[in-house]
Amino acid sequence: MVEQDFLATEFETRVENAQRAMHHEGLDALLFTSEAEMRYFTGFRTLFWQSPTRPWFLVLPLVGKPIAIIPEIGAELMRTTWIDDIRTWSSPAPRDDGISLLVEALQNSNKIGIPMGRESTLRMPLKDFEHLRQRLRNSMLVDCSDLINSQRMTKSTAEIAIISEICTIASASFANAANLFFEGQSLKAVFRSFRMDLLAQGADDVPYLVGGAGQGGYKDVISPPRDTPLRSGDVLMLDTGATRKGYYCDFDRNFAIGHAGEAAKSAYTKLHTAIDAAMRITRPGITCGELYKTIAHKLDGLEQGGAIGRFGHGLGMQLTEAPSIINFDDTVLREGMVLTLEPSIAVCDDKIMVHEENIVVQDGPPLLLSKRAPPELPVL
Amino acid sequence: MVEQDFLATEFETRVENAQRAMHHEGLDALLFTSEAEMRYFTGFRTLFWQSPTRPWFLVLPLVGKPIAIIPEIGAELMRTTWIDDIRTWSSPAPRDDGISLLVEALQNSNKIGIPMGRESTLRMPLKDFEHLRQRLRNSMLVDCSDLINSQRMTKSTAEIAIISEICTIASASFANAANLFFEGQSLKAVFRSFRMDLLAQGADDVPYLVGGAGQGGYKDVISPPRDTPLRSGDVLMLDTGATRKGYYCDFDRNFAIGHAGEAAKSAYTKLHTAIDAAMRITRPGITCGELYKTIAHKLDGLEQGGAIGRFGHGLGMQLTEAPSIINFDDTVLREGMVLTLEPSIAVCDDKIMVHEENIVVQDGPPLLLSKRAPPELPVL
Repeated sequence: MVEQDFLATEFETRVENAQRAMHHEGLDALLFTSEAEMRYFTGFRTLFWQSPTRPWFLVLPLVGKPIAIIPEIGAELMRTTWIDDIRTWSSPAPRDDGISLLVEALQNSNKIGIPMGRESTLRMPLKDFEHLRQRLRNSMLVDCSDLINSQRMTKSTAEIAIISEICTIASASFANAANLFFEGQSLKAVFRSFRMDLLAQGADDVPYLVGGAGQGGYKDVISPPRDTPLRSGDVLMLDTGATRKGYYCDFDRNFAIGHAGEAAKSAYTKLHTAIDAAMRITRPGITCGELYKTIAHKLDGLEQGGAIGRFGHGLGMQLTEAPSIINFDDTVLREGMVLTLEPSIAVCDDKIMVHEENIVVQDGPPLLLSKRAPPELPVL
Repeated sequence: MVEQDFLATEFETRVENAQRAMHHEGLDALLFTSEAEMRYFTGFRTLFWQSPTRPWFLVLPLVGKPIAIIPEIGAELMRTTWIDDIRTWSSPAPRDDGISLLVEALQNSNKIGIPMGRESTLRMPLKDFEHLRQRLRNSMLVDCSDLINSQRMTKSTAEIAIISEICTIASASFANAANLFFEGQSLKAVFRSFRMDLLAQGADDVPYLVGGAGQGGYKDVISPPRDTPLRSGDVLMLDTGATRKGYYCDFDRNFAIGHAGEAAKSAYTKLHTAIDAAMRITRPGITCGELYKTIAHKLDGLEQGGAIGRFGHGLGMQLTEAPSIINFDDTVLREGMVLTLEPSIAVCDDKIMVHEENIVVQDGPPLLLSKRAPPELPVL
């Protein structure tokens, strides 16, 4: 038996929960084309999704285990999971890249759910999808984004344990900042050194690392590094989505290089206070919109979601997942949701600052997964 | 001026070439939703695509520069590129996540190309796409996969220089194998140590690292590592897609641990010879299908594409790109194409072996970008 990320019971529970929701909505099958859902229901984990060449399909029937309809290259790995029904074809195929197998698996389903809403992607060629739709013209294809997002939002104890592990690893690397970063170092060298430290601390991978540095703040929070050296008075921000067993952490840290200016110190404190306020009200039962408004209020409406558009989001198998901490998201928080709290603020001129922490919603105050940032802007 | 991966002339040429093809096919605009095409025409490079929350759009009109229609969070980074026309909205949005901006940009286009064919993905919610299609019902939406794939297949001198850099880096890490890997080491530790070495040698990132180890060969070529320790007689294979400025290498190496068995040695030699044979005939003018047949012939039809389904593929901004070295791909090789040659073979029982090299097609023998693997299975 090849070592797996989860026990089979984890997947059984996921499937049962989905099938209960399917029954409720009168769905006969769900069809998924994307990595996260494939992994969520099967445990199939590979970086091979980096290759866009082949489509991969998962059919979840109303009763029974999921059916994997996948390129032959994935069969061996899929056989190590809890899945029994694995249907393969030699892909890439000249004409029929899995479509006939899909039709066969779905032809007796009247109502089929496919993610079509917010945060979803169709990871198969549109032409093949049109062809599939034509061949399944007697079935109704409906959106199941809410069904799957709602289920995935609440994490199991086993999932939380893994996310907690990767948050602890990233916290250790951030705690090592004084040994890693220094005035004169190029931002590229900063990134390289931080990536290597994350791996050394136990991260499996670092799929996401962005950041910025500038006098008093930074202009941008999604850029790759440049050759620009760190200067005294810079605020350096690093935001990392490192992974463990395919689960992400997602939080950032700010550091002043040499010395910190007043505007930066004050912005930092304001953001720290906003996270405190958010932590105080985060409980099962409140909505994402309420959480958003609390944070916005603490920031004096200075940058209400600003360029980033929201003050946090769900976290798990993807760097960002539903829900959004934004005024229009009325998702009610439930125990077991893993969230990022991510307020941002204008510092001065065109500079901004962002803080981020990772938490689990639970009965009582939320559990911090990231080691809380210090209350004052640390100077390196 | 913020440092860029390419000069503006590189993007001007890409746009001119695309517009020439558009003119030829009577297309008024192209619409892209995915990372590779956005970066190809704008230079916009960020790991933020890891977040599935927001859609990103690029419109390429028949005349003039591309129009970026993107979430506000990307505006600052987009402004550092050569793009002038940047239209943004605060995303995620409660209802209209960029669709009205898209409609406005496309409403005067009669015939709009969207990638819908092989290797393409629709990176926006299907519901939003249906809505867009409805609002553009007076326009014709057609597949432009061939147009864009055909153009991207041929790399510029500047692109080849970057791919060559990352191939040199990965070659240096593989050359370091004897210092990194040892009997008793867990496969997880092997991966970690190799990732760190790639970063130390100058890779920006290691988005892809897969491999396997087993007595005489391995069963699978896309798996993440397990805790299993390397044993004497194992063949260890690592296949990496490390990146530099967002461009990939993609090749593997095989190593015997302690000693090599006869079946493994013989399979290794056969694969090495197959690559030699492929190199000898790789020239502008031959087709991918012909290249496939040459390799298959050298392998005595032992594993004709096998589970992997093909003997190589294009390489560039994505780990795998068009074309495919497979019997049905009649793409004619052109100067400047960067390819992987990747024959695979059955060793014994259920074990396989794969070799991979990266080359540039040119007038004369192809240029090796990866340092050629030794002709005999190296023993660590």
